[in-house]
Amino acid sequence: MPSMKRRVLKIDKLPTVRRLPAYLTLLRELYLKGEQFVSSAFLAERMEIEPILVRKDLELTRINGTPRIGYCIGDLIKGIEDFLGLGETLDAFLVGVGQFGTSILYNRELTNLGLRIVAAFDKDPQKAGALVPEVPVFDMVRLAELSQRIDVGLAILCVPPEDAQEVTDILVASGIKGIWNFTSANLVVPEDVIAQKEDLASGLAVLSVKLNRIQPALLD
Amino acid sequence: MPSMKRRVLKIDKLPTVRRLPAYLTLLRELYLKGEQFVSSAFLAERMEIEPILVRKDLELTRINGTPRIGYCIGDLIKGIEDFLGLGETLDAFLVGVGQFGTSILYNRELTNLGLRIVAAFDKDPQKAGALVPEVPVFDMVRLAELSQRIDVGLAILCVPPEDAQEVTDILVASGIKGIWNFTSANLVVPEDVIAQKEDLASGLAVLSVKLNRIQPALLD
Repeated sequence: MPSMKRRVLKIDKLPTVRRLPAYLTLLRELYLKGEQFVSSAFLAERMEIEPILVRKDLELTRINGTPRIGYCIGDLIKGIEDFLGLGETLDAFLVGVGQFGTSILYNRELTNLGLRIVAAFDKDPQKAGALVPEVPVFDMVRLAELSQRIDVGLAILCVPPEDAQEVTDILVASGIKGIWNFTSANLVVPEDVIAQKEDLASGLAVLSVKLNRIQPALLD
Repeated sequence: MPSMKRRVLKIDKLPTVRRLPAYLTLLRELYLKGEQFVSSAFLAERMEIEPILVRKDLELTRINGTPRIGYCIGDLIKGIEDFLGLGETLDAFLVGVGQFGTSILYNRELTNLGLRIVAAFDKDPQKAGALVPEVPVFDMVRLAELSQRIDVGLAILCVPPEDAQEVTDILVASGIKGIWNFTSANLVVPEDVIAQKEDLASGLAVLSVKLNRIQPALLD
């Protein structure tokens, strides 16, 4: 079953994809400092992974390093930008303009990766009509109507967890295929919809392990 | 080298640890609905992973399922809570009370995992003296002094990326061993300090792949 094989390979590459934006930030820093070449050993140290993994990660960009010289920084930047499709924008709605949602609206790093939030929604009618920072905010009651009229690839969910499924159902009914879920709710979506959860709690759990709060014996 | 082996095993378990808070949220939901048992197949569907992986994940809690009945939900909740050390609090500083930092101060999910932010810092002196929501905010100039006086295990970095290294150096000099980095900066820290980066950009890169923005051929 080739489709199965492909799927497995894809998932296998996700940790690499996850690291690419960090490589990009690091490489752009070096580039601005006037550096031309970088070794996998240096990247490994800064990324806190093994050099062999750096070389494997960078294979995705199809840029090769030269022994004793390293990788050309400009080529790597271009390679990663191309791979991540930074030339095209990804249009999105943001739902829930609370503190966290607002921080996403102001997040330049995401804009640099091609994210363009075209409209935001909040159930507080007081927030409707505002521009945060340049994104128009609409009353939540208009979500169904506007998500049918405006074609976006992604919705960013920053609502309270108890509202998450209801908002998701409205979005899915209007044909949205991607949901970036920043709530703690586990969403139920049809098979053809991608719902990705970004869970700060996960990060804290991993950090607890690294800080040895958790008995290492339990991890052996 | 046994220490090397242990380290590899630990890292191998991190994806499981990362999923534990999501299991916990899901199991608590089921428990509140009055459910008593849950199958690995059901958990697999809701967690969007394979049932075999669910069974492997839950081995960490040392709770066993019963064939045809499943896992006792109450036992699993207790098992995960114990594993994550939810009985003990993890005291932390938060540095940078902007929109994102404020959203962390209000995040109940993190509190439920044992995080207790004891003080926050901001370079805007106007913010000093406030309580957000019950956490005292201090002027950044007091960071060096207070981080030496108050013993915390973790600092949560929500400052602009250009300030991140300077703040880190102050924290490290005062003996902090854990830094949760929500900035896009790659931090330089001594070997005995854990700096974990939570990168929203990583999440967007992975989402782009899942949404097929990136040519699947490049991932094969």
